[in-house]
Amino acid sequence: MDSETENGRPRPEVSADDIDELLAEMTLEEKAGQLAGTYVGKLGTEKTLEDAEREITEDHIGAVSPFGIGITTLDDPARAAEVANRLQRHAVEETRLGIPLSVPVDAVHGHAYINGATVFPHNVGMAATRDPTLVERGGEITGREARATGATLNYGPTLDVARDQRWGRVFETYGESSYLCGELAAAEARGLRGDGDVDETLRVSSANQNAERSGDDPTIAATAKHFPAYGQPERGEDASVVEISESTFRRTFLPAFERVLDEGVDAVMPCYNSIDGEPAHGSERFLTDLLRGELGFDGFVTSDWGGVDHLHEDHGTSDSRRTSAWQAFTAGLDLVSVGGPDYAEEVVELVRKEELSERRLDESVRRILELKARLGLFEDPYVDPDGATDTLANDDHREASLDAARDSMTLLKNDGVLPLSESLDDVLVTGPNADDLHHQFGGWSVMDDSDLQGVTVREGIEDVVGEESVTYEPGATITEEADVDAAADAAEDADAAVVVLGEDWYIHEFGPQQMNRPTGDFPTRTQLELPEAQQNLLEAVQATETPTVLVLVSGRPLSIPWADENVPGILTAYYPGMDGGTAIAETVFGRHNPSGRLPVSVPRSAGHLPTVFDYLPHPTPIGADEHPDSYDPLYPFGHGLSYTDFEVSGLTLSSESIGPAGEITASVTVENVGDRAGDRSVDLFVEDVVSSRVTPVREHVGFAKASLEPGESAELEMTVPADALAVRGRDYERVEPGEFVFSCEEETTTLTVEPGRN
Amino acid sequence: MDSETENGRPRPEVSADDIDELLAEMTLEEKAGQLAGTYVGKLGTEKTLEDAEREITEDHIGAVSPFGIGITTLDDPARAAEVANRLQRHAVEETRLGIPLSVPVDAVHGHAYINGATVFPHNVGMAATRDPTLVERGGEITGREARATGATLNYGPTLDVARDQRWGRVFETYGESSYLCGELAAAEARGLRGDGDVDETLRVSSANQNAERSGDDPTIAATAKHFPAYGQPERGEDASVVEISESTFRRTFLPAFERVLDEGVDAVMPCYNSIDGEPAHGSERFLTDLLRGELGFDGFVTSDWGGVDHLHEDHGTSDSRRTSAWQAFTAGLDLVSVGGPDYAEEVVELVRKEELSERRLDESVRRILELKARLGLFEDPYVDPDGATDTLANDDHREASLDAARDSMTLLKNDGVLPLSESLDDVLVTGPNADDLHHQFGGWSVMDDSDLQGVTVREGIEDVVGEESVTYEPGATITEEADVDAAADAAEDADAAVVVLGEDWYIHEFGPQQMNRPTGDFPTRTQLELPEAQQNLLEAVQATETPTVLVLVSGRPLSIPWADENVPGILTAYYPGMDGGTAIAETVFGRHNPSGRLPVSVPRSAGHLPTVFDYLPHPTPIGADEHPDSYDPLYPFGHGLSYTDFEVSGLTLSSESIGPAGEITASVTVENVGDRAGDRSVDLFVEDVVSSRVTPVREHVGFAKASLEPGESAELEMTVPADALAVRGRDYERVEPGEFVFSCEEETTTLTVEPGRN
Repeated sequence: MDSETENGRPRPEVSADDIDELLAEMTLEEKAGQLAGTYVGKLGTEKTLEDAEREITEDHIGAVSPFGIGITTLDDPARAAEVANRLQRHAVEETRLGIPLSVPVDAVHGHAYINGATVFPHNVGMAATRDPTLVERGGEITGREARATGATLNYGPTLDVARDQRWGRVFETYGESSYLCGELAAAEARGLRGDGDVDETLRVSSANQNAERSGDDPTIAATAKHFPAYGQPERGEDASVVEISESTFRRTFLPAFERVLDEGVDAVMPCYNSIDGEPAHGSERFLTDLLRGELGFDGFVTSDWGGVDHLHEDHGTSDSRRTSAWQAFTAGLDLVSVGGPDYAEEVVELVRKEELSERRLDESVRRILELKARLGLFEDPYVDPDGATDTLANDDHREASLDAARDSMTLLKNDGVLPLSESLDDVLVTGPNADDLHHQFGGWSVMDDSDLQGVTVREGIEDVVGEESVTYEPGATITEEADVDAAADAAEDADAAVVVLGEDWYIHEFGPQQMNRPTGDFPTRTQLELPEAQQNLLEAVQATETPTVLVLVSGRPLSIPWADENVPGILTAYYPGMDGGTAIAETVFGRHNPSGRLPVSVPRSAGHLPTVFDYLPHPTPIGADEHPDSYDPLYPFGHGLSYTDFEVSGLTLSSESIGPAGEITASVTVENVGDRAGDRSVDLFVEDVVSSRVTPVREHVGFAKASLEPGESAELEMTVPADALAVRGRDYERVEPGEFVFSCEEETTTLTVEPGRN
Repeated sequence: MDSETENGRPRPEVSADDIDELLAEMTLEEKAGQLAGTYVGKLGTEKTLEDAEREITEDHIGAVSPFGIGITTLDDPARAAEVANRLQRHAVEETRLGIPLSVPVDAVHGHAYINGATVFPHNVGMAATRDPTLVERGGEITGREARATGATLNYGPTLDVARDQRWGRVFETYGESSYLCGELAAAEARGLRGDGDVDETLRVSSANQNAERSGDDPTIAATAKHFPAYGQPERGEDASVVEISESTFRRTFLPAFERVLDEGVDAVMPCYNSIDGEPAHGSERFLTDLLRGELGFDGFVTSDWGGVDHLHEDHGTSDSRRTSAWQAFTAGLDLVSVGGPDYAEEVVELVRKEELSERRLDESVRRILELKARLGLFEDPYVDPDGATDTLANDDHREASLDAARDSMTLLKNDGVLPLSESLDDVLVTGPNADDLHHQFGGWSVMDDSDLQGVTVREGIEDVVGEESVTYEPGATITEEADVDAAADAAEDADAAVVVLGEDWYIHEFGPQQMNRPTGDFPTRTQLELPEAQQNLLEAVQATETPTVLVLVSGRPLSIPWADENVPGILTAYYPGMDGGTAIAETVFGRHNPSGRLPVSVPRSAGHLPTVFDYLPHPTPIGADEHPDSYDPLYPFGHGLSYTDFEVSGLTLSSESIGPAGEITASVTVENVGDRAGDRSVDLFVEDVVSSRVTPVREHVGFAKASLEPGESAELEMTVPADALAVRGRDYERVEPGEFVFSCEEETTTLTVEPGRN
């Protein structure tokens, strides 16, 4: 602990072994400060950089969020790096122990709150690619770009399983399958942390993979969020109660966390909501018994923003900030992420009053210091501001984003209208999402529209067919008509019309209103249909009988029964990121053959919710024929068309039977029987025929993807551990003997689990 | 055991003490037969009366459902009584031990599968009355009429708490409040069993109570159904999974059962669905640990129709009928209600193979024999066919039904158009529910339209204003227009228009289709809005600017935002029963002042579900002002207008504080400050301000009703045991010290629960 910094001040070079010594040196106040983070920006109270510096010095605060989040306007990369360095210098040089800071960011789809960063498709689009390599690469680039600006920890990956299509955070998820969420979040975590071993041979599809891996140490720390269950809020209302049984909790939400914790993450963030009456932020059952006990997590637990305040402000399980602090730290929380000096003081008081033990504090401080040590912050917490600007969205990074956007394109319907010919003379491009980068980015992005960099759909189509062949009419905003007649007239004259509809950007409960729209205007949780203005635009264009393609840019799957009935071509693009316009144009005009497959079901209407592929079977007391289908989506999970034709055949298992601790490999042959090259992914499902508890009609247990020339075929293998067949509930998790029917598209085959063997 | 019947055969006069002896005499097959019921009618296999007789003799079957259910056409009262007598005689005279039969019926809103019976409003309407006395009287009349035809047990009361407005069985429930469901189901049980002590002084409202109580022994046995939780099926889909946490299960569903089991019922029927992976029919956790252990129930548990078959046919927790039988009897079931000889055989085999103990069988047989003894069936199982015809819908009974229908009328909106004047010259009556008794009855009623007895809305209005002053135009069927123009033209000429819309009859999942409509046609679970044809009719009439009143006859609360915005008067009548037409007409024309209050919230749309008054609070992470309300119904729970004005004031508690085992009485003054007499009910709610677990924003803990002349006031008292304030969950049920805010309309007052006192 006696080495010196360049300016001569002593600096602790803390290895894991030194942390005991450092802890022993710390005062109670210094410890408490490490357990509270602060911010720069407007969140209730507005805090300046100077405020943060004062809190570092006076209150020993150990974590600061100055950028990369939704409450600051600091979005310049070099400036961000300078601010990070300034704050780190303050912590290292102006505090007694010189402990470096944690600098967390919300880099949800790239480091997208920073101008010029690579903006990837949001996770729901990434999930449509069914390609962990693309996701891992996205994580790696995001981590590298975030670290380049001085961030040390990302609030991601998101493991939330989207079980209600109304929810305003569906787009942040990898969809409705716990398995898919777990696999892709694990890939993202590998990328963020630089743990990955990107194996080019895994990558069967056509992605450009020129960029070399840095080979650096962990780029950034990763946070698995939001533990343990967030994605099924009542009414689709953000942060409302997740009302599920213990068995569904363990079947639908826990496996993704098990997968990602096994993969390795540094932190876990609790969810805002309560489950079974317990707000996660104050629940010992979830944060200690389950997370640390049952799941064996030994990293640190950071609150989500106001998650601790909510205990007394909203959940009603606490009567004051002090009680909330007590509840949260007793439950197992390690850091109040934006609680600042207020919470540091509460912690000190709780220890003084012997309501919380200093030993409990030490556990949390140790976890936090260990991570700072592992990230090398004690050795060097600084970054190069010039390097930040150079790193962000360099050509390789941007190509990776475009590649992901291409592979996310999901063709919902094609009556033959697609692809359009590049040689059309007059293409109408219309709709509120045809020429708006912010809508195309979605939430969790730079909020100043003028700063956005990327290619809109209009621009992408102009690039493909030539500017002179494109007529653009806005037609409508998200909620208001904007000369629909002009759009219809233009459609009348055009050779084809591309109508780009959907949602604009939002976060959480479709806010914040001051940024874009009045509360309750579309997009809002209660409405899955297109707003009247957009519907009118679509109908007016379609009525001209000009070949019409509907492109949806939206965070949630929208209920579009009229379009499904009447529009010949429908492509969904999710929020495709900065180069989404290029990916959409390439797909619509056939330069790219779409291969995206829905990670979330498209419901017919809100009245059909919950619409999930893995629903639980149940009786139909007056007869199945009088009972409308339980799962009757407009487009099912896994749906997605191509411009070529594939045949999926020959589903076989590596063995007819396994023991309860074994594993099985399923193989299936995919053949391109059409006349152009294309990628094709498949999903593998399993049904537990008879079990002691009711189990889903099918569970998602595998996926794989092939890139095939016409006439070419490939055998795809998917390995499933017997664990994935377990029946889960309150007091049990066991693989029960009996028959399990695997299915892949129309193919099925049966596995027997036998008690007496492996 | 040596007395003789009139024809000289020995007949066991079984008292409770004799049952041991009888049991000892029974063969295994005779015991198994008592555990299986059969039916007459078409349910999968069609069975004749002769089939049933053969099963009684050969298979020792101990329960038969020959009428009063949805699968027979036997709907004549005298004939029903003769059939019951014939079957009883067969059981008594043609079997070795002469054990009389149990004859169960589905008398859901009166003994309504029998022609000429008193048909009450369905429960959701009964709940709008907030009047346990009316409900008890309904139960008493139902029990008396059912017993008069030879039935011995009713499959009711229904305790299901309706938590999803899409569900096809909402109308069978007492609404969305567990408290209301418990209180009213307890009243119904008292009535059915003849346990009641109808105290006229309890009855503050204007009901006709001329009919004398019979003073007889229990008229019929009562079954609390469907245990433990049925009313929140996923997607509103009948019998689908109830997906809730343990704490919500114990807070929302169990209290109604606790209340009714305390009141006293003879039987409990499990629900069809699974909860936390366990189908109720095969769950030891629910049927034994919870029902018998925790709740102390000592009556018998009867399956719901195919509930045991569903274990292997639908839930997938069993692979065969035998395994299902084993699961169900091991779980704690006592009777497979329509399983017949098949299940009796399975039970015999299970005992022979020592998979089920004969001791376990004896327990079930004893419970069944005890009930038969308690009902006096061993002494005299016969009824008088002439008496049946005389008993059904006698004047007193029918007056009670009309009285209930009147008090159920719920005025949702009144811009001053109501009441209409009786002296109008030309009243247009239109709509698919204006002149259709079957629609007005709702499901669980005689299925042959020609047999229905009652007064339609059209007839009721003709009675009030004179036939010559009524113009009737159908306007639409439920789903199709039927000369809307004619209705609009008539509206143009009329002084006022009464548009009677809503749903037709259905049971369960809106079937059965062969009886009325194709699967998926309205009414269906996914649609809460009026069908287009009805909406068009309403808009066309309203467009004439003739004063228009919308009357809804429907089982579920329909989402009618357009009507709420545009139609000046809206009355909901639920399914008002045989004299609903009179009650509606009297209300619309002001002879009756409406006092019904919604027992279930009316949601704005299916996208707003779940819409319940007692939702759990939660954070709004980006700000409450950007978060649409969690509870934003079109009309809230408890809503209901009057033709007079009331003031509710002075909410006070009998004490400022109580101990965790105490009770509190809340008083509130209701004053009629308008100019005509009327009834007024109030609901009492409580909020647990701070608790160890998240508790609802308010819970329903009381209701009371006054009948007041203009200028008159009354003090209403509602007693709440501290138990009602308990926090409930998996391992806990405790009244926690702290503050509890009681509210009644705009009035609030605070109670402190102190640990150290009573």
